[in-house]
Amino acid sequence: MTLQTELMQRLNAAEDEMIAIRRHLHAHPELSFHEKETAAYIKQFYQGLDCQVSDCGDGYGIVVDIAGGYPGPKLALRADFDALAVQEANELSFKSQNPGVMHACGHDTHTAYLMVLAKHLIALKSQLHGSLRILHQPAEEVSPGGAKGMIADGCLSDVSNVIGLHVMTSMPTGTIGYHLGESQTGRSNFTVKFTGKGGHASMPQLANDAIVAGSYFVTALQTIVARRINPFDTASVTIGSFDGAGSFNAIKESITIKGDVRVMQESTRQLVRAQVEQIIHGVEAMFGVTAQLNYDDNYPVLVNDPKLTQHVVSVLGQANLPEISAVTDYGPQDPSEDFAYYAQQVPSCLFYIGCMPDDHANHPHHSPDFLLNEKCLLIAAKAAGTVALDYLSA
Amino acid sequence: MTLQTELMQRLNAAEDEMIAIRRHLHAHPELSFHEKETAAYIKQFYQGLDCQVSDCGDGYGIVVDIAGGYPGPKLALRADFDALAVQEANELSFKSQNPGVMHACGHDTHTAYLMVLAKHLIALKSQLHGSLRILHQPAEEVSPGGAKGMIADGCLSDVSNVIGLHVMTSMPTGTIGYHLGESQTGRSNFTVKFTGKGGHASMPQLANDAIVAGSYFVTALQTIVARRINPFDTASVTIGSFDGAGSFNAIKESITIKGDVRVMQESTRQLVRAQVEQIIHGVEAMFGVTAQLNYDDNYPVLVNDPKLTQHVVSVLGQANLPEISAVTDYGPQDPSEDFAYYAQQVPSCLFYIGCMPDDHANHPHHSPDFLLNEKCLLIAAKAAGTVALDYLSA
Amino acid sequence: MTLQTELMQRLNAAEDEMIAIRRHLHAHPELSFHEKETAAYIKQFYQGLDCQVSDCGDGYGIVVDIAGGYPGPKLALRADFDALAVQEANELSFKSQNPGVMHACGHDTHTAYLMVLAKHLIALKSQLHGSLRILHQPAEEVSPGGAKGMIADGCLSDVSNVIGLHVMTSMPTGTIGYHLGESQTGRSNFTVKFTGKGGHASMPQLANDAIVAGSYFVTALQTIVARRINPFDTASVTIGSFDGAGSFNAIKESITIKGDVRVMQESTRQLVRAQVEQIIHGVEAMFGVTAQLNYDDNYPVLVNDPKLTQHVVSVLGQANLPEISAVTDYGPQDPSEDFAYYAQQVPSCLFYIGCMPDDHANHPHHSPDFLLNEKCLLIAAKAAGTVALDYLSA
Amino acid sequence: MTLQTELMQRLNAAEDEMIAIRRHLHAHPELSFHEKETAAYIKQFYQGLDCQVSDCGDGYGIVVDIAGGYPGPKLALRADFDALAVQEANELSFKSQNPGVMHACGHDTHTAYLMVLAKHLIALKSQLHGSLRILHQPAEEVSPGGAKGMIADGCLSDVSNVIGLHVMTSMPTGTIGYHLGESQTGRSNFTVKFTGKGGHASMPQLANDAIVAGSYFVTALQTIVARRINPFDTASVTIGSFDGAGSFNAIKESITIKGDVRVMQESTRQLVRAQVEQIIHGVEAMFGVTAQLNYDDNYPVLVNDPKLTQHVVSVLGQANLPEISAVTDYGPQDPSEDFAYYAQQVPSCLFYIGCMPDDHANHPHHSPDFLLNEKCLLIAAKAAGTVALDYLSA
Repeated sequence: MTLQTELMQRLNAAEDEMIAIRRHLHAHPELSFHEKETAAYIKQFYQGLDCQVSDCGDGYGIVVDIAGGYPGPKLALRADFDALAVQEANELSFKSQNPGVMHACGHDTHTAYLMVLAKHLIALKSQLHGSLRILHQPAEEVSPGGAKGMIADGCLSDVSNVIGLHVMTSMPTGTIGYHLGESQTGRSNFTVKFTGKGGHASMPQLANDAIVAGSYFVTALQTIVARRINPFDTASVTIGSFDGAGSFNAIKESITIKGDVRVMQESTRQLVRAQVEQIIHGVEAMFGVTAQLNYDDNYPVLVNDPKLTQHVVSVLGQANLPEISAVTDYGPQDPSEDFAYYAQQVPSCLFYIGCMPDDHANHPHHSPDFLLNEKCLLIAAKAAGTVALDYLSA
Repeated sequence: MTLQTELMQRLNAAEDEMIAIRRHLHAHPELSFHEKETAAYIKQFYQGLDCQVSDCGDGYGIVVDIAGGYPGPKLALRADFDALAVQEANELSFKSQNPGVMHACGHDTHTAYLMVLAKHLIALKSQLHGSLRILHQPAEEVSPGGAKGMIADGCLSDVSNVIGLHVMTSMPTGTIGYHLGESQTGRSNFTVKFTGKGGHASMPQLANDAIVAGSYFVTALQTIVARRINPFDTASVTIGSFDGAGSFNAIKESITIKGDVRVMQESTRQLVRAQVEQIIHGVEAMFGVTAQLNYDDNYPVLVNDPKLTQHVVSVLGQANLPEISAVTDYGPQDPSEDFAYYAQQVPSCLFYIGCMPDDHANHPHHSPDFLLNEKCLLIAAKAAGTVALDYLSA
Repeated sequence: MTLQTELMQRLNAAEDEMIAIRRHLHAHPELSFHEKETAAYIKQFYQGLDCQVSDCGDGYGIVVDIAGGYPGPKLALRADFDALAVQEANELSFKSQNPGVMHACGHDTHTAYLMVLAKHLIALKSQLHGSLRILHQPAEEVSPGGAKGMIADGCLSDVSNVIGLHVMTSMPTGTIGYHLGESQTGRSNFTVKFTGKGGHASMPQLANDAIVAGSYFVTALQTIVARRINPFDTASVTIGSFDGAGSFNAIKESITIKGDVRVMQESTRQLVRAQVEQIIHGVEAMFGVTAQLNYDDNYPVLVNDPKLTQHVVSVLGQANLPEISAVTDYGPQDPSEDFAYYAQQVPSCLFYIGCMPDDHANHPHHSPDFLLNEKCLLIAAKAAGTVALDYLSA
Repeated sequence: MTLQTELMQRLNAAEDEMIAIRRHLHAHPELSFHEKETAAYIKQFYQGLDCQVSDCGDGYGIVVDIAGGYPGPKLALRADFDALAVQEANELSFKSQNPGVMHACGHDTHTAYLMVLAKHLIALKSQLHGSLRILHQPAEEVSPGGAKGMIADGCLSDVSNVIGLHVMTSMPTGTIGYHLGESQTGRSNFTVKFTGKGGHASMPQLANDAIVAGSYFVTALQTIVARRINPFDTASVTIGSFDGAGSFNAIKESITIKGDVRVMQESTRQLVRAQVEQIIHGVEAMFGVTAQLNYDDNYPVLVNDPKLTQHVVSVLGQANLPEISAVTDYGPQDPSEDFAYYAQQVPSCLFYIGCMPDDHANHPHHSPDFLLNEKCLLIAAKAAGTVALDYLSA
């Protein structure tokens, strides 16, 4: 029996354990940078297993090192474990027990499959050529992201490549998706506060209306994507917050606007930033207001290494896993991923595991009724396990 | 000694009492429609005096009827007694004791002078031709205003005219101001909620951004005053609230905007309203959002009866009161006044009493450091008293 | 027979002459600053009359001096004689013979009545106390206006007051209108050229679209009247020209915008100008375009001297002229008048002569079907003659 | 000697002829749909050659049929021959002799190389398997484009594939570019006239300002690309013309706007059109103006058939032509091409021939100083000839 066959059999047998772990995590979600109990739970799992577990980064990051029996490269597998500020609307036996917090993006499945996979790779490690590093990462959802701190703390030292995956409810269960090169958007966020002069609603000439300035700002901002970016490039600029609540009869002295920028090229990121700043200067000049700008370039564009990704695709295609019906190019994705930080450092690949419920109902990520097909756990484990074994073979 | 001389002497002697009452009210301010203690205090004052005290309206309104010794017309004198949601910033021995509530518009002085004046007119009432009705009115500051309910409850029955006054920190103490005809703006308020479709910041094409729709609405609204109103007419349209607070990475499904409209002609009010509605329909069509509009035409334009006002000015000018240095046309005023409701029913006049501090520092109405010159109390009492005596003379 | 009676009889007899002159002028209109034939026609009229005729100003201005028999003040009467770039749409026997040029504002009537009135005042001049100066002024319609050059050339030397009038089709024939103080708007004009960078329509990122910059400019401009001017003041800002014609597939490098500003206070004029300039700087900053601004403060606010105007009204009221049914305050008027330049120098009065056709149809000034009631000629002559005789009486 | 070698030798010898023809065409440019002399010149060239020449389409299109000696497929080669409304700024011996018209896009080279290539393929035709159809096409630059009429007239009957090429000054001479699939934008154009109500600048309330409505339209239009299109899709919306010239003191009754839309997906074209229409309805509702819209969906997205294009690339790569240094993916291009109409009917391929001058100076297409390296003529002929021979080989 090959190592691959043995691992697949072990995973088949471990499916219930994955589901149980996933359900435990789902019932006990924690917000980004506050995943204290989750991290403790994960560390407890590794107690007694033949591996080295270390804290990593400024949050609750955990690194698990598994040394193979033979020399070889070091491969990292990454799973994130933070949840979202969403109130779960599903009625499940393992429904979130933390009000206003929910695993509404599937990070519970990432962590559950990887814990179990790691346990079985530990069991088989004497046959591995090279070593494995499991990256249990907190805080994927919230800038600056958990990856940044773990990298700063050395989680990538001696690591040749990083492999990660994300479940996708929009993809049928059984399909695997990937994209070469630029695959998920880079992101910047900004906060700008415009300050004019307050006053009585009936005497606008004595005041300087921050709501008016802010509204013209929003309309002018539309010209960035519409006129200042190459139509063949990708960019979006969203104002997610226009905080100007007040009373009927008073002119607002100041309002605060929050913006979100997505790009697929770092050069576009810089171009958009320069234009946002230019328009803000224009608003200052045009309306005589002052602007305080806080601009945060955070998640990079996720660039999947083409060679590594092609190899992963090829390995998955040749593995003939009965649970996997197709491996297809899923195209570039709008959301950002802090996995991009790993990919900036070493050639990396993040691929997608379909988890659409059997009834094909729509349960989008980040929504209160996010729902996934738990079959994805075994598929994820087998896919990542297959890639790892291939990587650590002679 | 004439009746006028007697009243002036009495008021001179009562100045300390007015100040004491005013300070008591100032220390115990109550918000519009919640003036329970203030009303009780006022009613207590009249106990034992030879007059008829009645509750009036749906709030805490009080009507005090003083019957003269001879037949004649019935004159109403009105003072308002509500305070504002402002945290007092002054350090005074009689500083507001109610956190977040302050007599920041001087209604405490209106009520204090009129209570004391009423007491002395009661003492002299046998010599009056006609009768006096004192209107202690709550809730001037907040729509629908206290006047409306008191009128509905009959406070103007048999009343020939209403006289009121407002203190003004922008006018030097000792000066009296007035204006003929349209004198303070009429007001409308509206709330409009624009609803699009929420979504993820990186996928604007799947959402319908309510902040963008709202911002274009605010810019389009500028054309009402700029292009759709006769330049010789008066109108202002202020958006006092743009309630669109949210997070960076989500597109807002809905935002709520509050607007304030001021006009000096009722025809202009209708024109502005039609244009606001037209622009809202335009936003719906342009952005595919839906709008829920709540439009409230509240305080009328205050129209001071020209003949009555000219007479009041003439009486004050001829009275040769030593405290009054000038009676001048103060021009039309931007703020609205629910005194306008009385003036819609019977010929009425609201005039202004200068109360600028002696150091001429700027302490604007409705600000946390609103401050007035207490000399205005005696001046107000003498001015109103003089007008009343003239009115109720043979 | 009084002098007044004699003049009125003479004017009654001269009505046909006025109509004939007016029709000649109407048939031969000339554009502002190009009134060569009109001026020659006027000067010919005075040949042989006992007066002094001089050219005046840098255009075709004419001054006619009439010395009275007795000492006294010098009164100026002014009439303008330029026409408009309008193609007449009326079918009249004396229809404009100059294609694209029309007396569409009634200046032909101003000049015709004043020529005839002047002739008869010359005939009666021995009985006048003081002297008369007739100002036949060119180029009222077009900045910088003919008045400016005539004043610079001394047309007001020794003149105590200037009287002018304007016919008004919106007023019933037989009525006379006036307004005290600020009576017609002051005007400024500006031209701003925004220059970006041209390019191909399919590559906006390589160009800088001047049409987009100009459009945002127009929307931002709305905030001047809407938010930056006292609602009790009067101002309008109109963009009369957005010259950005081009082809489908090229991005415009530059566009030119022309603006018109009206105010009733010189302080408002300065405020609007500062705001226009501020918004232009804002557009430059916001869109990275450059702006070339040419700002021309031209006609002043017309301020009718209150005392002189009250006197004129009183004289007209007491004259009991059978053709005049009413003399009423016609309120402030939106259009500007270069008569305002005279009023800046000496106390002056411009009043209005109703000339509405008998069928009360609407034939607005400056329109191709402008039409007036020729009865206004006699009325104008009598009104101005009455005022002049009163002025130059003992 | 192979057929390929023989054709290459013939073309080497014919380089001067190509240059001479190109210079003749350059000196005698004609505007789209007016290429009478050009068409006559081309037809003259083919006189006496063993081929069949026919007029085609509703313009000056010419089809030249060359029957091979053996049965086989029919391949079409297309070259366009219209010029642009540009005044040439270059000083050349063969400078444009038609004022205001210039071959500023290189269509002269397309036609010159193809005429000479056709002549030599006619000479070799007995050895060809299949047949060739030369498409000399007029009016590429101007909607509806010359291709449409030629196709309607049957120019593609029995044609299996169409090959075309375009010279590119932005690519070094010696390089050949291509792109698979969507390669040049589809285009729509629209004209919208907004009609309000004219009036005097000083009385905006009586008018309805079309310039204001048009300006808000332009700003609202920015939201289409910015908010309503998938950021991964390509779209541009350019307003190339804002025709609103007028005078200072009149409010414009109507203005006319011309727009240009580019997309890379036909679905995006429909989406943009729906949004333009929606925004126009919004402007009508918001400003009470009426809109007349003329919307013209013209050139399709150019879709290069992937299989055919890969084959062309492979043939060119293996040909080892000394003049060609590289064949590279040049990416999608912003401009539109009516070659797209052919590609809608049969699998087609348009590729690019570098023609950058040796000094690498920038002489962009459509500019008055457009300049190309005439070496491109021989390169184009060899490239197209090589592809044709391969296609028509046994």
